[in-house]
Amino acid sequence: MTHNEQLKHKIDFKTKPLGSLGLLEDLALQIGLIQNTLTPELKNPALLVFAADHGLTAEGISPYPKDVTWQMVMNFVAGGAAINVFCRQNGFNLKVVDAGVDYDFPSGVPVIDAKIARGSRNMRHEPAMTPEECSAAVQKGRELVQEEAANGCNIIGFGEMGIGNTSASSLLMHRFLNIPIEECTGAGTGSHGEQLTRKMQILKEVSEKYDPKTPEETLATFGGLEIAMMVGAILEARDQNMILLIDGFIATAAALTAIRFNPEVRSNCVFCHSSDERGHKLMLEKLDARPMLHLNLRLGEGTGAALALPLVQAAVNFLNDMASFESAGVANKE
Amino acid sequence: MTHNEQLKHKIDFKTKPLGSLGLLEDLALQIGLIQNTLTPELKNPALLVFAADHGLTAEGISPYPKDVTWQMVMNFVAGGAAINVFCRQNGFNLKVVDAGVDYDFPSGVPVIDAKIARGSRNMRHEPAMTPEECSAAVQKGRELVQEEAANGCNIIGFGEMGIGNTSASSLLMHRFLNIPIEECTGAGTGSHGEQLTRKMQILKEVSEKYDPKTPEETLATFGGLEIAMMVGAILEARDQNMILLIDGFIATAAALTAIRFNPEVRSNCVFCHSSDERGHKLMLEKLDARPMLHLNLRLGEGTGAALALPLVQAAVNFLNDMASFESAGVANKE
Repeated sequence: MTHNEQLKHKIDFKTKPLGSLGLLEDLALQIGLIQNTLTPELKNPALLVFAADHGLTAEGISPYPKDVTWQMVMNFVAGGAAINVFCRQNGFNLKVVDAGVDYDFPSGVPVIDAKIARGSRNMRHEPAMTPEECSAAVQKGRELVQEEAANGCNIIGFGEMGIGNTSASSLLMHRFLNIPIEECTGAGTGSHGEQLTRKMQILKEVSEKYDPKTPEETLATFGGLEIAMMVGAILEARDQNMILLIDGFIATAAALTAIRFNPEVRSNCVFCHSSDERGHKLMLEKLDARPMLHLNLRLGEGTGAALALPLVQAAVNFLNDMASFESAGVANKE
Repeated sequence: MTHNEQLKHKIDFKTKPLGSLGLLEDLALQIGLIQNTLTPELKNPALLVFAADHGLTAEGISPYPKDVTWQMVMNFVAGGAAINVFCRQNGFNLKVVDAGVDYDFPSGVPVIDAKIARGSRNMRHEPAMTPEECSAAVQKGRELVQEEAANGCNIIGFGEMGIGNTSASSLLMHRFLNIPIEECTGAGTGSHGEQLTRKMQILKEVSEKYDPKTPEETLATFGGLEIAMMVGAILEARDQNMILLIDGFIATAAALTAIRFNPEVRSNCVFCHSSDERGHKLMLEKLDARPMLHLNLRLGEGTGAALALPLVQAAVNFLNDMASFESAGVANKE
C-alpha cells in the first residue's frame, strides 16, 4: 500500500461508521501526508501577528482611525486582545511583528521590529509598495518563520492588524480570482451604507489604475506590508513543511497570493473559519476549502486560527489514539 | 442597567469591532445570563453517554448488527472510541450509562447500570416503551444529573450509542415538528439506496400506526430508552441551571423533546454542531439554533459536544479576560 492508502486504511478501520468523523478525517489524512507518517504530532504551535498601516486609509475607507493599528499592537503586547486570550487558552506561542506601523514603539515593548516603512503608500496615487519594499517584506516573513522552525514549531497560524487591510485583500482577491471588485468588498471593521459605497468606488478606481502582470507585481501594487510579510511567512512555512492555519479574509487573501507564488502551498493549508466578511466564502470556494468553524467572526488577528487548534489536535488524536474494529472487538458493517 | 444590558455593554466595549466575535458574543451573553454574572465560569464539565438497544432493529433498519451497541459500550469503557479521545483532550468527566442494552456487562466493567429493559420494544408492533418504562428512564436520567450537580458540574454534554436510534429520532422530529417523515429520515450509520428506502417505509408505517397526544406519550411511543434517559438528563440539567451542550441528530431530537416537556430548556442549550445526518439542519432551523461547528460528523456519542467545549471556554475567556477600549487606551469607532 502507498502511504496515502495506509493512512486511509488506518482512518477507515477506526471504531466508527465509515467517514463519520467528516472533516476531521480529511484533516487527519492531510496531516499524515504532510508529515509522511501514520502517527503525526503537533509541536510548538506558533502564531505570528503582522501589523502595518495602509496609505489608502487617507481616503476614508475605514470607520476606525489608523491610530487603532498601533494602539491594538500595544494591546497585543499587554495581553488584552482577543488573540491573546485565545492563544493563551490553546497553547500558542504568540509573536507580534511590526511590519510597517506608522508609529515608534517605545523600547522594551516586546514587538518584533521588522518595519519596512511607516505604512504602505496610498494606492490611489501610487502602488502600495515599491518592488523592493514588497520583496523585503516577503523576505522578512520568511526569516521569522525560519526562527519558528528552529524552535521546533510544525504548525503555525497567521494573524494581522492593519486598519485598511480588508481593502487591500479585496483588491488581491479581485485580481487573482478575476471576480468583480463589488463581490470582493465588504464591511471590514464596520463600513456600511455610504461609507461602504465610498470604499467600493475607491477600490474600483484603484483597480482600474494599474495592470500588474506577475503575482509579485500584483502583491506590491495592491497589498500591504503586513500582507506581504504574511505571504513570505506562508511560503517559508510551506518550505519548512509546517501545517498552515489559515483563517479569515485577509489571511485567506495572503494564502491565495502565496499559492500564486507557489501552488504547493495549498496542500499544507488548513482553512479554519468561514468569516462574516463578504467575499470570504467565495474565496474559500475558489480554493476548494471547507472551513471547520462557522462563528461569524470578522475580527482578524488570527483569532480563527487560534480557535481551530483544538480541532486540528482532535484530528491527530483520533488517528493516534482511537481503537480499530479489530483491536476493540467491534463488529464492522454487515 | 439590567443584567442583560450590563453584559451587552461589557461585550461591546471589548477591544474589537462591534459584534466581530460573532457567535462567541451570543454565547458569552447566553452564559452570562444563565449564570447571572458578568464573570461566568465553566466548572467540572461532564459528558454522559447513554446506551440502549432498539426493538425496531429486528426490521433491518440499520446496516450494523445490534451487537455493535454493547461492543461499542465496551470500547467506551476501554477508552478506545472517538468520544474517549475527545473527552480526554478537552477535560470532560465521561460516564457511560447502560440505559437499556440487550447484554449483560461483566461485573467490574465501569458502566453505570441504569438498565430499564433489554432494549426498547419493536414499535412496528407496539410502542417503544410502556409509560412506566419511559418515565423510569426519564427519572433515572434526572438522578444521574443530580449526581453531576453534586460534583460541582455546571456544563454538561449528552452522548448516545444505540444501533437504530436515528430511526427513533426521525420519528420524534417528525411528530414534534409536523414535518413529513421523508424529510426527517437519513442515512444514520450508513443506510443508502434500498436500505434507506426500506427504513423510510417502515418509519412511515410506524408513524401511521400511532396517535400519541402528549409529549410524554410521543416519547414513549417513538423514542428509545437512551433517548428517554437523555431527555430526563436534559430536563434536570436545566433545572440545575447547567449549560447544555447539544450536538447531533439524536441529541437534538432529545433536546427538542425536552423542550416540549419544558420550554425553558431552550435558553440553556448551546448547539454545538451541524451534522451530516439529513434532517438535522432542518431541526436546528426550527429551534432557531446556529451551531458553531460544521465538521460533517455523523458519529454520535456526544462527539460534537466534546469538540465544542474549547469554543465555549473561549466565549467565557474573552468576556473575562479581554481588555476594554478604555482600559487598553484604544480609540473606538469615529
